[in-house]
Amino acid sequence: MKLAIAQLNLVIGDLTGNAAQIMAAAQQAVEKGAQLLLTPELSLCGYPPRDLLINPSFVETMTATLQQLARDLPPLAVLVGTAEPNRQSQLSGGKPLYNSVALLAGGQVQQVFHKRLLPTYDVFDENRYFEPGQQPNVFSLGGWRIGLTICEDLWNDEQFWGQRNYATDPVGDLVEQGVDLIINLSASPYRAGKQKLREAMLQHSANRYNQPIIYTNQVGGNDELIFDGSSIACNRQGAIVARAQAFERDLLIIALDEAQRDLLPGSVAPAPKSEDAEIWGALVLGLRDYAHKCNFTKVVIGLSGGVDSALVAAIATEALGAQNVLGVLMPSPYSSDHSIQDALALAENLGIATQILPIAETMAAYEHTLGPAFAGTPAGLAEENIQARIRGNLLMAISNKFGYLLISTGNKSEMAVGYCTLYGDMSGGLAAIADVPKTRVYALCHWLNTKAVALRGKLEIIPAHILTKPPSAELKPGQVDQDSLPPYDTLDDILQRLIDQHQSLAQIVDAGHDPAVVQQVVQMVARAEFKRRQAPPGLKITDRAFGSGWRMPIAARPTIAISSLM
Amino acid sequence: MKLAIAQLNLVIGDLTGNAAQIMAAAQQAVEKGAQLLLTPELSLCGYPPRDLLINPSFVETMTATLQQLARDLPPLAVLVGTAEPNRQSQLSGGKPLYNSVALLAGGQVQQVFHKRLLPTYDVFDENRYFEPGQQPNVFSLGGWRIGLTICEDLWNDEQFWGQRNYATDPVGDLVEQGVDLIINLSASPYRAGKQKLREAMLQHSANRYNQPIIYTNQVGGNDELIFDGSSIACNRQGAIVARAQAFERDLLIIALDEAQRDLLPGSVAPAPKSEDAEIWGALVLGLRDYAHKCNFTKVVIGLSGGVDSALVAAIATEALGAQNVLGVLMPSPYSSDHSIQDALALAENLGIATQILPIAETMAAYEHTLGPAFAGTPAGLAEENIQARIRGNLLMAISNKFGYLLISTGNKSEMAVGYCTLYGDMSGGLAAIADVPKTRVYALCHWLNTKAVALRGKLEIIPAHILTKPPSAELKPGQVDQDSLPPYDTLDDILQRLIDQHQSLAQIVDAGHDPAVVQQVVQMVARAEFKRRQAPPGLKITDRAFGSGWRMPIAARPTIAISSLM
Repeated sequence: MKLAIAQLNLVIGDLTGNAAQIMAAAQQAVEKGAQLLLTPELSLCGYPPRDLLINPSFVETMTATLQQLARDLPPLAVLVGTAEPNRQSQLSGGKPLYNSVALLAGGQVQQVFHKRLLPTYDVFDENRYFEPGQQPNVFSLGGWRIGLTICEDLWNDEQFWGQRNYATDPVGDLVEQGVDLIINLSASPYRAGKQKLREAMLQHSANRYNQPIIYTNQVGGNDELIFDGSSIACNRQGAIVARAQAFERDLLIIALDEAQRDLLPGSVAPAPKSEDAEIWGALVLGLRDYAHKCNFTKVVIGLSGGVDSALVAAIATEALGAQNVLGVLMPSPYSSDHSIQDALALAENLGIATQILPIAETMAAYEHTLGPAFAGTPAGLAEENIQARIRGNLLMAISNKFGYLLISTGNKSEMAVGYCTLYGDMSGGLAAIADVPKTRVYALCHWLNTKAVALRGKLEIIPAHILTKPPSAELKPGQVDQDSLPPYDTLDDILQRLIDQHQSLAQIVDAGHDPAVVQQVVQMVARAEFKRRQAPPGLKITDRAFGSGWRMPIAARPTIAISSLM
Repeated sequence: MKLAIAQLNLVIGDLTGNAAQIMAAAQQAVEKGAQLLLTPELSLCGYPPRDLLINPSFVETMTATLQQLARDLPPLAVLVGTAEPNRQSQLSGGKPLYNSVALLAGGQVQQVFHKRLLPTYDVFDENRYFEPGQQPNVFSLGGWRIGLTICEDLWNDEQFWGQRNYATDPVGDLVEQGVDLIINLSASPYRAGKQKLREAMLQHSANRYNQPIIYTNQVGGNDELIFDGSSIACNRQGAIVARAQAFERDLLIIALDEAQRDLLPGSVAPAPKSEDAEIWGALVLGLRDYAHKCNFTKVVIGLSGGVDSALVAAIATEALGAQNVLGVLMPSPYSSDHSIQDALALAENLGIATQILPIAETMAAYEHTLGPAFAGTPAGLAEENIQARIRGNLLMAISNKFGYLLISTGNKSEMAVGYCTLYGDMSGGLAAIADVPKTRVYALCHWLNTKAVALRGKLEIIPAHILTKPPSAELKPGQVDQDSLPPYDTLDDILQRLIDQHQSLAQIVDAGHDPAVVQQVVQMVARAEFKRRQAPPGLKITDRAFGSGWRMPIAARPTIAISSLM
């Protein structure tokens, strides 16, 4: 028997379009001799559907689409992810839906399986919508007894984690029941290094239970989340015998070894060669899909001559093609000559069009208008923010006039400490590198330059001067970032401990940081919450991004045990 | 025996300050002869603490603060809401915390109770943090056997709701165990009409089980959520024998009838006289608390001469005092004369200061700067948005320069269909009326004018002309809202059905609406998602606000069954 994994790039809510994608994959799978097709978790509506699930007519349409799909499919069995009504909910008090997989075959829905472990942490809200399934999910096909798990169901191997994440263990339950093969339908979002973790976990479970495991992932960007694909199959020994492409649609065929009740070796796509390569792939996919799924073909980016906008322009160029990227330079009287030169050199390297819109005249108009109100006050933050907001307004004007998606260019370090202007440089439909710390921005640019010949036929993509000059917002004469912030390597280490690792201040100080600097950073992070609340969606590449998985109060005064530090 | 309800206004995360509030209430309660003090759910950290709970050192500090509070309290028993570590979680796989209540007495934590029903819908995310308690919560004091419930624990009376919301019923369990009294510690957020629902539910349960019930609510605004207080006590017959103030801090004493094992009649604060009065009270509290808890004393508001900014200015004046509100008029060449006059008349009625900052010169500067880029294009949305964004920039400049909180003035109808400019009129730290439909904005203004003498010693607050002229954004000559939108009474009815009631398009059409209009509205709502994602927090006054309880994808194409309508 042969199975096929359809690593699909689904559009949230587009039931008709997603069903058509499943149909096309099924036809391909039949041509390649497969008898069973696996699709990702909730493949019919795409993951995550979020509050679309609250609309009863959406769920009804999903059910009707599923039934039509069952009738239309070619002759093979197909597992389709769908939200199934919980008909007991009003009587027994549970949530109204299950996160389910339907086994379609012979023109009908043959069996429906329910997800048992519902992630409700970080970006995941599954307890908001779903009731957990209570039964192990098993079906038989072609003489194989197959255990089915849905995404999180696989993530509770207490040997691997060193602790239990949930009370029940769906994999252990399946092994106890006796199955020949465990399959998993996932929509597992990307973060740097996650595929290594997934592979280690799957290999551990396959080996522990002496059980082949096939893991199917969604691919593509859906708002802030990037699904990286990289579906894999492990044999009984825990060796990876097949891997689908990272960051691309794929159809992967896996042949079963009937005699050994195991998987035969198949096609193994290479994993990205470095974490920078991996993050680059994720960001390119995330930007491309956000633009296309929002019906944009072109983007506009403000080019300051700095490293952040340079990286974002390079990502956009790779994602959409140079002809679809417009860089806008908006020099002020405080812009240095090299800013213009560096931005133009970058645009030349990328082959993208540019426009220059100087802001001095508009600055003067604001200054004149506000003159009476501001009389006698020293120039400061208010005046700096006006400049950033003029630029935001100009970029949005181009976006509105020509239908270009504005991509904002702020990095995670800035977003963390609020070193950015709300309605200014934070403006945009998507924040491409909002989850990339500044030190990683530099690393990605250096990595990118090593690929310059391969990607663009150039000796460099990011001009060297952009990478060597001190970072500056250029909102007043001679300003550099390090006037206001600790050095970025220090800042990023503190932020990583604080945000990703939830370390206490004492722990961060114990790691060797200056208590005064730690306190300053913690206060800056807390005070910037109001800005982050109004930020555009930012592509998530770390464990803890400032997006839907970051839920902090604004009007708060968290008691923090810092006095002992000082 | 006497009990006291401390209806506290807590600051999220401010463990020290909240403990001090509990101390002060305990001293008052002792002076009034109470032997037990009830405080709201999670009173030590305030509700909702959100992701502060993910920080282990925050939870440790909370535990230490609780123990110190136990030592400091005067001689009475006090129930304090706290997050208690779940020490079994790593072994048994549950969430790391409980949503708990600690019974403090005799200098110690005597007992700890866990919340059993964890709301995970709308704005509530309790399954994200908490493990549900498994036991009914009972303690004895002064010869009374008291059953304790925490907020949602009370909300599962299947007789009252006509269905089960959860599998377990904590109230039924307590009644089965036999208790003399049921108490409930809540943080139940406001929406219009909710107190009537709460009272009906409590009265039903008290009467059904022949059991006195005492309900303690938090009061105050925490970001978008407004807690309305209105704590109540029902006797065995289901009569309300005591009620605390709505929208104010209060300490309510309830005397127990030892002989009848019932509650004696106490002080019954009047309920707000109308839904408009109630919403007004909520918005005033929400704005005041957001400003104060974010450390602002003054606010700035753009006054267009329209009804939305008029209402917001009136709310701010009531919340903070006229001397703390600045109205800014920003006329353009498209502003009508009456806009200025109406805005100035409003400011005069409210007694607030104004500034006039004309935007024509800045408009000209943008036009000149963008001239080459925009050459040959007709003026349209881009040019309109520039004006709105100039105003946003001017208001933020005043906010940044003088430390005033900018309050944005958009209503729910606009936010729903995207009839607003991102980074323009949407700018602000708080959106005061973002959950108030336009038709309700008018109703509130008319109601407010009936209170003009009482509130401001004037014959009117909102000038009559503001209420009679056709609404207009005044971004081009002769523009009125109804050029782009259905009449507001039609629009608001469609929106209410679509957003609050989750009706299908067919149901909305069946209610008598034009299919073409319904389709237009549905599409506008879907397309405006990217704007709402970047909106400031908006005070919630309905069942379904566009805030943390509205979780919609942006890059989505929801399949909607509309073809049959057309």
